Amino acid sequence: MEISTLLGVIIAFVFLVIGMFWGGGNLEMFADPSSIVITIGGTLAGVFASYSIGDFFALPKVMGIAFKKVEYDPVSGINIIVTLANIARKEGMLALEERANEIDEVFLRKGIMLVVDGTDPELVKNIMEAELGSIESRHQKGTGMVEQIGALGPAFGMLGTLIGLIIMLGNMNDPSALGSGMAAALITTFYGSIIANVIAIPIATKLKTASGNEIMYKEILLEGILSIQAGENPRIIEEKLYSFLPRAVKEAPKKEDAEGEAEEK
Amino acid sequence: MEISTLLGVIIAFVFLVIGMFWGGGNLEMFADPSSIVITIGGTLAGVFASYSIGDFFALPKVMGIAFKKVEYDPVSGINIIVTLANIARKEGMLALEERANEIDEVFLRKGIMLVVDGTDPELVKNIMEAELGSIESRHQKGTGMVEQIGALGPAFGMLGTLIGLIIMLGNMNDPSALGSGMAAALITTFYGSIIANVIAIPIATKLKTASGNEIMYKEILLEGILSIQAGENPRIIEEKLYSFLPRAVKEAPKKEDAEGEAEEK
Amino acid sequence: MEISTLLGVIIAFVFLVIGMFWGGGNLEMFADPSSIVITIGGTLAGVFASYSIGDFFALPKVMGIAFKKVEYDPVSGINIIVTLANIARKEGMLALEERANEIDEVFLRKGIMLVVDGTDPELVKNIMEAELGSIESRHQKGTGMVEQIGALGPAFGMLGTLIGLIIMLGNMNDPSALGSGMAAALITTFYGSIIANVIAIPIATKLKTASGNEIMYKEILLEGILSIQAGENPRIIEEKLYSFLPRAVKEAPKKEDAEGEAEEK
Amino acid sequence: MEISTLLGVIIAFVFLVIGMFWGGGNLEMFADPSSIVITIGGTLAGVFASYSIGDFFALPKVMGIAFKKVEYDPVSGINIIVTLANIARKEGMLALEERANEIDEVFLRKGIMLVVDGTDPELVKNIMEAELGSIESRHQKGTGMVEQIGALGPAFGMLGTLIGLIIMLGNMNDPSALGSGMAAALITTFYGSIIANVIAIPIATKLKTASGNEIMYKEILLEGILSIQAGENPRIIEEKLYSFLPRAVKEAPKKEDAEGEAEEK
Amino acid sequence: MEISTLLGVIIAFVFLVIGMFWGGGNLEMFADPSSIVITIGGTLAGVFASYSIGDFFALPKVMGIAFKKVEYDPVSGINIIVTLANIARKEGMLALEERANEIDEVFLRKGIMLVVDGTDPELVKNIMEAELGSIESRHQKGTGMVEQIGALGPAFGMLGTLIGLIIMLGNMNDPSALGSGMAAALITTFYGSIIANVIAIPIATKLKTASGNEIMYKEILLEGILSIQAGENPRIIEEKLYSFLPRAVKEAPKKEDAEGEAEEK
Repeated sequence: MEISTLLGVIIAFVFLVIGMFWGGGNLEMFADPSSIVITIGGTLAGVFASYSIGDFFALPKVMGIAFKKVEYDPVSGINIIVTLANIARKEGMLALEERANEIDEVFLRKGIMLVVDGTDPELVKNIMEAELGSIESRHQKGTGMVEQIGALGPAFGMLGTLIGLIIMLGNMNDPSALGSGMAAALITTFYGSIIANVIAIPIATKLKTASGNEIMYKEILLEGILSIQAGENPRIIEEKLYSFLPRAVKEAPKKEDAEGEAEEK
Repeated sequence: MEISTLLGVIIAFVFLVIGMFWGGGNLEMFADPSSIVITIGGTLAGVFASYSIGDFFALPKVMGIAFKKVEYDPVSGINIIVTLANIARKEGMLALEERANEIDEVFLRKGIMLVVDGTDPELVKNIMEAELGSIESRHQKGTGMVEQIGALGPAFGMLGTLIGLIIMLGNMNDPSALGSGMAAALITTFYGSIIANVIAIPIATKLKTASGNEIMYKEILLEGILSIQAGENPRIIEEKLYSFLPRAVKEAPKKEDAEGEAEEK
Repeated sequence: MEISTLLGVIIAFVFLVIGMFWGGGNLEMFADPSSIVITIGGTLAGVFASYSIGDFFALPKVMGIAFKKVEYDPVSGINIIVTLANIARKEGMLALEERANEIDEVFLRKGIMLVVDGTDPELVKNIMEAELGSIESRHQKGTGMVEQIGALGPAFGMLGTLIGLIIMLGNMNDPSALGSGMAAALITTFYGSIIANVIAIPIATKLKTASGNEIMYKEILLEGILSIQAGENPRIIEEKLYSFLPRAVKEAPKKEDAEGEAEEK
Repeated sequence: MEISTLLGVIIAFVFLVIGMFWGGGNLEMFADPSSIVITIGGTLAGVFASYSIGDFFALPKVMGIAFKKVEYDPVSGINIIVTLANIARKEGMLALEERANEIDEVFLRKGIMLVVDGTDPELVKNIMEAELGSIESRHQKGTGMVEQIGALGPAFGMLGTLIGLIIMLGNMNDPSALGSGMAAALITTFYGSIIANVIAIPIATKLKTASGNEIMYKEILLEGILSIQAGENPRIIEEKLYSFLPRAVKEAPKKEDAEGEAEEK
Repeated sequence: MEISTLLGVIIAFVFLVIGMFWGGGNLEMFADPSSIVITIGGTLAGVFASYSIGDFFALPKVMGIAFKKVEYDPVSGINIIVTLANIARKEGMLALEERANEIDEVFLRKGIMLVVDGTDPELVKNIMEAELGSIESRHQKGTGMVEQIGALGPAFGMLGTLIGLIIMLGNMNDPSALGSGMAAALITTFYGSIIANVIAIPIATKLKTASGNEIMYKEILLEGILSIQAGENPRIIEEKLYSFLPRAVKEAPKKEDAEGEAEEK
């Protein structure tokens, strides 16, 4: 999703750093290697323990999705469906086979191939919905991993602070060291809260939107595939599929093809 | 929704300010630019990171809805439907086309145009429900953004307080400055709590009600459109649609048309 | 719901007051006008901002329901249905019209009138279910308002405590005043917790039960109305409707009409 | 369910008491009548305010269920169903009437009587499902009461601690009494946490399992009643009903009747 | 699920221990027998009170599942189904009986035996879905127990800390012992947090994934069994069942049998 994830995370950090200097602090006060080990190391170890090795190492790729541009443009998806529907109408279902091989989108190609093969409509629907369900549960696992980072971050932050407090309180020979010991103890809580609120929560939110977009996109494709198979009128198919889109996205194409459709005032 | 959002937020601030002065404080104690930067800046950066740029910049417009008057009057919606149903009965479906062009409401006009075009009833229902679903998910995204402000506000407030505490505890040369350092540290928590409880939660609650009203309004319209298409009796349609309304709204029109309908005792 | 709400709230307050005196305190320590302004005023302002003016001013009436006796007696509701079913069986549907006018309960009368008017059964069901749905969503809004009082109470309590702490820490010239300043700061948290736990949570719980009772009562009536329209045997209707009731309520009438029905051992 | 509830609660208390003595404390430190009044009294008053008087006084009976042995043995339930199915097959439905009177279980007897009376299968299903629904909502109210004890316990514990702190901070003439005042204030939090974690949460968990067992048991009976009415083969009925059981329960009877059914490896 | 659970838990502990030494502490500071008794003992007693004795003693076995390798390979499951479908096609349903006895998987064998016995398809579906439902509710109970460990751990940790604080504050003769008393009090909170975040949460997460895998595996088998009974084409069955799999798993077999199926770019 565009540049906003990276930019937002950076800006949030900038605001925090400004707050540190403005308040009379310096970066040194907030950088503590042992706190990093406990908070980041512990959080990652917890996530590692919670998922399979394969899922864990897919984490950078999963989180990377939140930093990428939207891939699923429903308008162009509808255009492809309408084109295919026109071909199916004029040249018959079999003519779709040739075109299907040019389709990059795996989901759409699979659906069209099932239609070309003359698969029973009910079965096409079942197969493609199972496919969608498996995509959705993959997304949920990905978002779940990022959300667990957001839950374990503050937890290991608190564990680190408890470690720091117990050490500090156990070594209270030098009361003058109390302040710096307490400050050091709080740094892991600080790190844990950053992990959750600056990194994990925004990324998880973006991933959910990205998943919603992909699922909506593929539901539109599936609706289109089934409509093509049912031999529906391409214009009706177009109108039906556009109903799935949010208004903002709908406006653009409407103006382009200038069909005099209703506009909101 | 009326004036209550703005008024309520202002009154809540007034009560807090009264509390400040009554307790012997002054506004200066509670105004701290660096705290504003961390809390408000950080919260907005977090929301920016969580949504697409377009969604983020729609935030003022979305939040503005909570300060506006209700737009969706179901009673007048039902009246329009009944009028259309009468026309359809007396002059036929095609007579609706002319009238449809006078309708401002996009949703209703689209539905009536589908009926005029002789679209299959099942398809009209599917298209209009997809439209409703897309409206609903747009609303959910809007409310979700405001709710995330309410979640990130206190989180960045706590981050600011941690920054303040770490700086204060790290610079404990001057014990006399402890109090003011601690006070300054707490201000971000104060700001974060205000962002959540005085601003975000009331607005999100209003947005949910506004969304519920719009969806109910459009569900009534959809029910009406389908009933018109099915050629139902306009009086039956009216009675059916009124059942969707809360009692308070129902009372008024009942008295007007004086149909001797049941009144609650 | 009986006297228990008022009694319970009073007893809870008595226990808290006993705790105050027993612990060596006095009521003066716990009464602070500025804390009342912040906590109660702020909470109400927040609720005011969250709902429409009309909904807000219905709040006393909504909360009052929790202090009233149960109005919906399903057993007498079933008796009315059975009486009507007998009339419908013996004298025909039209004979119900006269009786319907004697029914106080709006919901039941409306349903019977629809049946008398010869409305299509499917339509009767739709209309009455829409009616039920609108009642349910009205209840949910009412309970939601009380629950928001329970959420905003502690939030404004914390805001008041933060205000008190910031003032106290900012004026630390006189360390001897620290204790009383801290005590004063904590009073708003105390008030906020009372608003939530002694008042809002019990009332919201009662409102949910009251709503559940009313919905169950009206679902039974609806089931009865539909059965009457279907011309079912009054004895079968009675048995069916009794199945919806909790056992405790069922026992009583069973003994009265001594039908030798099964009793739990 | 068995002895484990009582035993578990006692063991948990024993561990807490061991911790008290091991840490150098004594029971006297932790027993404070005014704390008991605030925490336990306040919690019960809050629950009293939240439910009807009848529901409140049923609380000991409801909580007692968690300490009793399981009453619902699905295997013997299935055996009764199979016996009845055999009778119905060989001697006809009417022969069931005699047997039905010997059945203790109200739910099963009611279902069988409906079948014997020649009630329409769809109606039998509706009546018995309404019955099940009313049992389930009764259970939910019971569990809800115990869960509210678990929620109000810590809340009144915190209220008590706030009372203690406010009194202590308001009477800070004698700094040496600070420690004991603070200790006393914390006792209500301690009690509240015990109410929730040692008593309410385990009991609520057990009640949910007990409810699940009873509902499953009665769903099996209902499935069996409907199968008998449909005149299904007793052996098929047995096999079908066994599918509802968890594997562990299934193993036992399998070995007994030695039908060579599949065993897990 | 592979080695990751054990490894992750160990690594998390290593990070915590590194943090202890790095911060100037030693293991002795963090090992306290009485804290272990309160936290671990209390948590286990609470879980014991919440479940039946049988369920409680199954806990080590349930938790062990999180440390084992995945047992359910859907690809080989699909292969078995396809093999059986081919046999059923070529040699008839009865030929399956012989093969069924060679199947280790109880669920699959039971389903095939039902098909061989000529059970009605609807009934096969009902029985196998009841079986699946009972497996799922067994899993939920297992995960629920681990989650309750995660909830009671911090609760008993806090109870232990309260005990420590009350003792410490009650014995404040020696202010120099305050630090070590406080440190000791915090150790139970530390243990409770470890129980929840390092042990219970990762294991519960793994158990949920393991349950999801087993359910998906058996749903695929069930879909396959019903397709075999319906006499569907083995190739269609294979394609349909593969749709249930996540893409990653699908890739491998696709390459093997080199059917030129669509690959994602």
